[in-house]
Amino acid sequence: MDIKTSQPKLEKSADRHSKEQLKKRFKEIRDFSIHLTEPLEKEDYVIQAINNTSPTKWHLAHVSWFYETFVLEKALPDYESLHPQYSYIFNSYYLQTGEPHTRSKRGLLSRPSVDEVLEYREYVNGQVLAFIEGATPEEIAEFGPVIEIGNHHEQQHQELMVTDFKYMFAQNPLYPKYKELNHPKGSPPDSLNWISFDEGIYEIGNDGGEYTYDNEHPRHRKFLEPFVMADRLITNGEFMEFMEDGGYERSPLWLDDGWATVNERNWDSPLYWCKRDDGWYHYTLGGLRKVHPHEPVTHVSYYESDAFARWADARLPREAEWEVAAGDKPYDGNFVEDNKFHPRPLQQNTDGLKQMYGDVWEWTMSAYEPYPGYEPLPGALGEYNGKFMCSQYVLRGGSCATSETHIRKTYRNFFYPDARWQFNGIRLAKNI
Amino acid sequence: MDIKTSQPKLEKSADRHSKEQLKKRFKEIRDFSIHLTEPLEKEDYVIQAINNTSPTKWHLAHVSWFYETFVLEKALPDYESLHPQYSYIFNSYYLQTGEPHTRSKRGLLSRPSVDEVLEYREYVNGQVLAFIEGATPEEIAEFGPVIEIGNHHEQQHQELMVTDFKYMFAQNPLYPKYKELNHPKGSPPDSLNWISFDEGIYEIGNDGGEYTYDNEHPRHRKFLEPFVMADRLITNGEFMEFMEDGGYERSPLWLDDGWATVNERNWDSPLYWCKRDDGWYHYTLGGLRKVHPHEPVTHVSYYESDAFARWADARLPREAEWEVAAGDKPYDGNFVEDNKFHPRPLQQNTDGLKQMYGDVWEWTMSAYEPYPGYEPLPGALGEYNGKFMCSQYVLRGGSCATSETHIRKTYRNFFYPDARWQFNGIRLAKNI
Amino acid sequence: MDIKTSQPKLEKSADRHSKEQLKKRFKEIRDFSIHLTEPLEKEDYVIQAINNTSPTKWHLAHVSWFYETFVLEKALPDYESLHPQYSYIFNSYYLQTGEPHTRSKRGLLSRPSVDEVLEYREYVNGQVLAFIEGATPEEIAEFGPVIEIGNHHEQQHQELMVTDFKYMFAQNPLYPKYKELNHPKGSPPDSLNWISFDEGIYEIGNDGGEYTYDNEHPRHRKFLEPFVMADRLITNGEFMEFMEDGGYERSPLWLDDGWATVNERNWDSPLYWCKRDDGWYHYTLGGLRKVHPHEPVTHVSYYESDAFARWADARLPREAEWEVAAGDKPYDGNFVEDNKFHPRPLQQNTDGLKQMYGDVWEWTMSAYEPYPGYEPLPGALGEYNGKFMCSQYVLRGGSCATSETHIRKTYRNFFYPDARWQFNGIRLAKNI
Amino acid sequence: MDIKTSQPKLEKSADRHSKEQLKKRFKEIRDFSIHLTEPLEKEDYVIQAINNTSPTKWHLAHVSWFYETFVLEKALPDYESLHPQYSYIFNSYYLQTGEPHTRSKRGLLSRPSVDEVLEYREYVNGQVLAFIEGATPEEIAEFGPVIEIGNHHEQQHQELMVTDFKYMFAQNPLYPKYKELNHPKGSPPDSLNWISFDEGIYEIGNDGGEYTYDNEHPRHRKFLEPFVMADRLITNGEFMEFMEDGGYERSPLWLDDGWATVNERNWDSPLYWCKRDDGWYHYTLGGLRKVHPHEPVTHVSYYESDAFARWADARLPREAEWEVAAGDKPYDGNFVEDNKFHPRPLQQNTDGLKQMYGDVWEWTMSAYEPYPGYEPLPGALGEYNGKFMCSQYVLRGGSCATSETHIRKTYRNFFYPDARWQFNGIRLAKNI
Repeated sequence: MDIKTSQPKLEKSADRHSKEQLKKRFKEIRDFSIHLTEPLEKEDYVIQAINNTSPTKWHLAHVSWFYETFVLEKALPDYESLHPQYSYIFNSYYLQTGEPHTRSKRGLLSRPSVDEVLEYREYVNGQVLAFIEGATPEEIAEFGPVIEIGNHHEQQHQELMVTDFKYMFAQNPLYPKYKELNHPKGSPPDSLNWISFDEGIYEIGNDGGEYTYDNEHPRHRKFLEPFVMADRLITNGEFMEFMEDGGYERSPLWLDDGWATVNERNWDSPLYWCKRDDGWYHYTLGGLRKVHPHEPVTHVSYYESDAFARWADARLPREAEWEVAAGDKPYDGNFVEDNKFHPRPLQQNTDGLKQMYGDVWEWTMSAYEPYPGYEPLPGALGEYNGKFMCSQYVLRGGSCATSETHIRKTYRNFFYPDARWQFNGIRLAKNI
Repeated sequence: MDIKTSQPKLEKSADRHSKEQLKKRFKEIRDFSIHLTEPLEKEDYVIQAINNTSPTKWHLAHVSWFYETFVLEKALPDYESLHPQYSYIFNSYYLQTGEPHTRSKRGLLSRPSVDEVLEYREYVNGQVLAFIEGATPEEIAEFGPVIEIGNHHEQQHQELMVTDFKYMFAQNPLYPKYKELNHPKGSPPDSLNWISFDEGIYEIGNDGGEYTYDNEHPRHRKFLEPFVMADRLITNGEFMEFMEDGGYERSPLWLDDGWATVNERNWDSPLYWCKRDDGWYHYTLGGLRKVHPHEPVTHVSYYESDAFARWADARLPREAEWEVAAGDKPYDGNFVEDNKFHPRPLQQNTDGLKQMYGDVWEWTMSAYEPYPGYEPLPGALGEYNGKFMCSQYVLRGGSCATSETHIRKTYRNFFYPDARWQFNGIRLAKNI
Repeated sequence: MDIKTSQPKLEKSADRHSKEQLKKRFKEIRDFSIHLTEPLEKEDYVIQAINNTSPTKWHLAHVSWFYETFVLEKALPDYESLHPQYSYIFNSYYLQTGEPHTRSKRGLLSRPSVDEVLEYREYVNGQVLAFIEGATPEEIAEFGPVIEIGNHHEQQHQELMVTDFKYMFAQNPLYPKYKELNHPKGSPPDSLNWISFDEGIYEIGNDGGEYTYDNEHPRHRKFLEPFVMADRLITNGEFMEFMEDGGYERSPLWLDDGWATVNERNWDSPLYWCKRDDGWYHYTLGGLRKVHPHEPVTHVSYYESDAFARWADARLPREAEWEVAAGDKPYDGNFVEDNKFHPRPLQQNTDGLKQMYGDVWEWTMSAYEPYPGYEPLPGALGEYNGKFMCSQYVLRGGSCATSETHIRKTYRNFFYPDARWQFNGIRLAKNI
Repeated sequence: MDIKTSQPKLEKSADRHSKEQLKKRFKEIRDFSIHLTEPLEKEDYVIQAINNTSPTKWHLAHVSWFYETFVLEKALPDYESLHPQYSYIFNSYYLQTGEPHTRSKRGLLSRPSVDEVLEYREYVNGQVLAFIEGATPEEIAEFGPVIEIGNHHEQQHQELMVTDFKYMFAQNPLYPKYKELNHPKGSPPDSLNWISFDEGIYEIGNDGGEYTYDNEHPRHRKFLEPFVMADRLITNGEFMEFMEDGGYERSPLWLDDGWATVNERNWDSPLYWCKRDDGWYHYTLGGLRKVHPHEPVTHVSYYESDAFARWADARLPREAEWEVAAGDKPYDGNFVEDNKFHPRPLQQNTDGLKQMYGDVWEWTMSAYEPYPGYEPLPGALGEYNGKFMCSQYVLRGGSCATSETHIRKTYRNFFYPDARWQFNGIRLAKNI
């Protein structure tokens, strides 16, 4: 039986910035990172399989560096880091805080060892908790929100850790398991239903009643033409139809960049798939396993999602359409706390939109752009979002590797159109 | 004295698809390509200096291939090409018409010679004109619009020829001149004035009263927040202020991709600029010349334009904003027919928006995306626009290398954010 | 009927450094370069198809720059170059004479035009001839030998021009002909005969009675074990047996670097070969043509030659073995003056070693190393040979693109083991 | 005090192939690999810092795979591997035994874990020892020599493990120590003395009285001109003189390939050196440490060694010269059993050749070529040496990371001319 693990959802009404809440959330999130690494051997913490991924060891230390740099060093004039050199090694891209260690070389560092990184985490934990405990109201007002950013930052890296484990293990001809997984069954999904939405001026973005990133602001108006959206995600079975229909060999289905990528990288199926005599298999965090036709397809790039949509005589949704469609649906779904580590089949053929949250991030056709009136946070924290608003596409809804306390309707995830190592999938839309 | 050369603007009211008009426009445009190559030596026709550029010889033949493939071969059952192999060599990216010769190898072809290419052009000219002459009204209805696409296609390649000459000559330590240029003077521009536009739902895109590409359709509604737009282009002098203020060395000014590009390619100024003891020079089609501070800055990438805007506490316009601002201004400006081959300084400090057409293409902050309800043309002609709608940015307004009969308010040009070899420049906008 | 063209062989007895001889040889060699380019269009002079090759225009100018730099500028205090910038563009690798223009960018230069390069050649010709005419005996003693180096340098570039034409035309899907070629027939060659040579200490290298490069010196002693050498070159037919026997697919036949190269570059036959329905064809300077089984195989790398030898249960000769075997055979063979531009089949099945000179350069198994006691020429002329003595292999005997007045028994040609664009071929040897 | 560790030298007279000796040597060598890894953390076993290096885990398993493949699987018809997939992962380049796992991906394998690899080693150890124990005389005759190859193969990988640790730790900005090292002092070395050797025909190569690789055979005759050889290695102090004299900036000192390499990789000192305010430091296995001027220079490429020699008006020795010079000197020196892990300064200014064995491998100017009459071992074992005889240079004498029971006078080590991560150094020679 699956049990929801220890990262409970924060009630919206709670005073998120009370000392109590700050400490509670901080501890929960810090513990959850350790929880995720429990199945690993020490050898698993070291490897950076491609430039996009990072060693687990690095993730664990980098999120600690974040609190150290943006809270402890700013709030505590006499703060001493456990190892001053760590601030060089574990910076990622915050150029305003100093030159970071080259991203592509994170996999060259066998030291600090896992134990030393865990010691570093403990040290930072103690310092942050002591700081909160002793902080004045003014300090809480100033640094409470930064700690909260740090918490959400760590949750993002928790998702990356999961996807990076997967990428690393999948390169290994032995196909090691992250852990034994219980893959839930579902009933065969009905054919797609199309839910209609009217034209109109909609309010898009977040009004700030909950934790948000700067890129969800400001709330603003957007005119949308009428559209329909598919009621569920595209399945492996549907994607195999596309493949069997020559999807990967027919240039008219593809964007020009996509077609070049398909040919350069010899793509003929989603990432992690391989063909055996008795059909398609894919690597999951529970090992190599036959592709289940009812599960949502995942590990597809924007290019593949777009080509699939064209083949299906549809298109991907705009991000504003997705947000409008999401309406006030509850944030239910298959999240990392569910311990599935894999998208699950549709549970029931109910009416209306299904699978909007969890399972897989849904590619939208919207380039990642600033909202009208967008202002990044001041200083180095402003490097969190704005500087990536170029050549990437927005994804919505969270995945089986996302924390349920991290997702929200207005959350804008983004990746380059060739990215496949995240749990990314497909929902279709159409013009009317 | 500058004289407008032979490519007169088509009156909007003319029956564009009458046999007379079709032949007239076809001949004018075909002649203008030859006119542009008059200053060249035969050796200049051969070189492909980078993958983005093509040999002049190739441009001249490729645009002929277009008529052959989409008109002659379809309309004339017994059509025989002068050289059947040319259809392989001179295809560019129309995958549905057969596998094209690899783009990166266009510069390996010394044959067909320039004379053979000109012979091929003459052959196609004769065939197209004879076809129009003898065509039934049904044939005119079917192929007249395709010939018109071919004409505009050739105009686009005329612009590319000019920018590709420039790129090639600029690589040569001898800095050969394309021709002697007369660089007009202007008076010092006033500081930027900001023209205001109201919020509202605007109609964007073309309603079809003139020649258009498919990507300008359908005309649709868009909500815009209020904004202001700079009344003129950014000058070399203003860009040098940015450079002197450390613009190329300050990471917070840059998009992440932009900062990586600046460092990988060691950019410290616009393309074609080089520093001498007495200041900055740049290669122009009239040779190496001191940078004139009042001319519009050009040969800047999206990254540089965006960084400049951030430095100036402004932003680039959205493409819809640009189109709204353009309103019904006449398509006046410094175009290729003006024989300047270089952006000219602001002529007069008049009120209102200036330099909207001609001189330089203006980067917008809008990713190149399909308009709501967009449908590409059917068949291979549909490869003209839609498949490039990914990771590129829209530019508006035309340049000194664009034909004045080719530009219009709704025209959407697009390039990757690192592209600098086109005459691209900067206009600023702001939120209110 | 083939006629030997204008580059007569110099009698050994002639006073090579008399003014008369110096002028005669200089003019003959300079004229021969022009003779080789007669079949070209201007467009053919511009292209650098790969980094190894150079544009014809560049070759013609570079060899002129050599005389200018090492004779005229040194001998004539007031010498003025026609275009001072040419010394930058047309230097190749003589670092001691200044930084050369990057090799890989030679194909970006459409100017100086062919006519300008020819004008430059004429200018240098006039200056060199006038210098010889007016030179003192001391000047002749000093610069006569340098002019002679320049002549031989130009002859080397004549061979490169021929091989570079071939490489360029072979990239063109139209397969243009350099000229109509008359491919001579021969009778089927007998199976290989093995000629024996005794062990002993042999004198290797040149004693200076004729023109030589520094790398042929000093004459020195070398002990050789007994060996046998094949009496003729390997033919296309024999090489096709290797191919049909899986030669390109069997790793044990290959050096490790060779096997990696075969797989990275997808080699399955000599350069310029392509398979058609009715068998193998290859591009020759006379156009695409069916592979003739009796012609010597050519355009094979060291790796392929070595693998062939292993397959044939033999090895390649050592360079000293080749020199010993060559003995005092006359320098007869199929050279560039024969206007074949292609290796010809064995003419007659006579006794003894055949095809030692001309047709194809013969790969030896000897790395290109300095002879014991080797001293490079002083100054920049010392960059001619010595600095390349690393990771290259020696070839012997000259090819159908070599001048018969350029070859000699002790001549050491050298290329990297992956080089295929020269007329390189195979002769086998064995231990006893 | 330094103590020689557990790998005693085998007496020449011993019956190397007796069961007793075979077991003894096998155990000693297998244990020594484990001894070398004792200072490591588990995280240190995983990383492949560059393509040339391999993870420690991989080395430990690969050498076991060797015994499994060439002894156990051949000798024992029912042999079962502990994990059949290991034969794919831990093959290196033996193509005749199946396609090996791509070299560049060895660093992607976190599993099998270190513990699993050690279990695999134990399993193989047990199997090999049991096989020896129960073998018939015929089996000993057949597989005894193969086990001996396996032992020497493991010793080579022991050296690679040491150099690969060093490379990995040196990439880490924390400069971790492999272990605390005791760097012995020495007295300032006298200036170079040149020892003379006569011209003559010398016997080169091994006559088989001791364990040898196939590449040391056959013993053969070679004529040498007279030469002198420096009596000791070049020191850091002498190499710094070269650096201070502009050694890395003066193109005439360098081979052409070397000069290109210096510029592409921005070399300005030996590998692992970095400049601080108070002079040059280098990473040693004992941590970052000031460069000691009396220690032999090491981690220099062939290019640097050759350039240094040219600067010093000398040359590198030929490999035959080195072998002649070594004469019957005992194999004394600073080897891996001495636990120095670093070349030590000259201990005493005695007469005659010093430092011929141990400390650093000495680059020779001889390309790695087969000896006259060379025959590789049959089958896959023949891939050990012969297929690398291309574009590499021979080094002689062993280093501080070599086992003293592994080196001998006729031992031919070889690396590409750009290799720097081995303990390679410089001894000079001259013509007379």
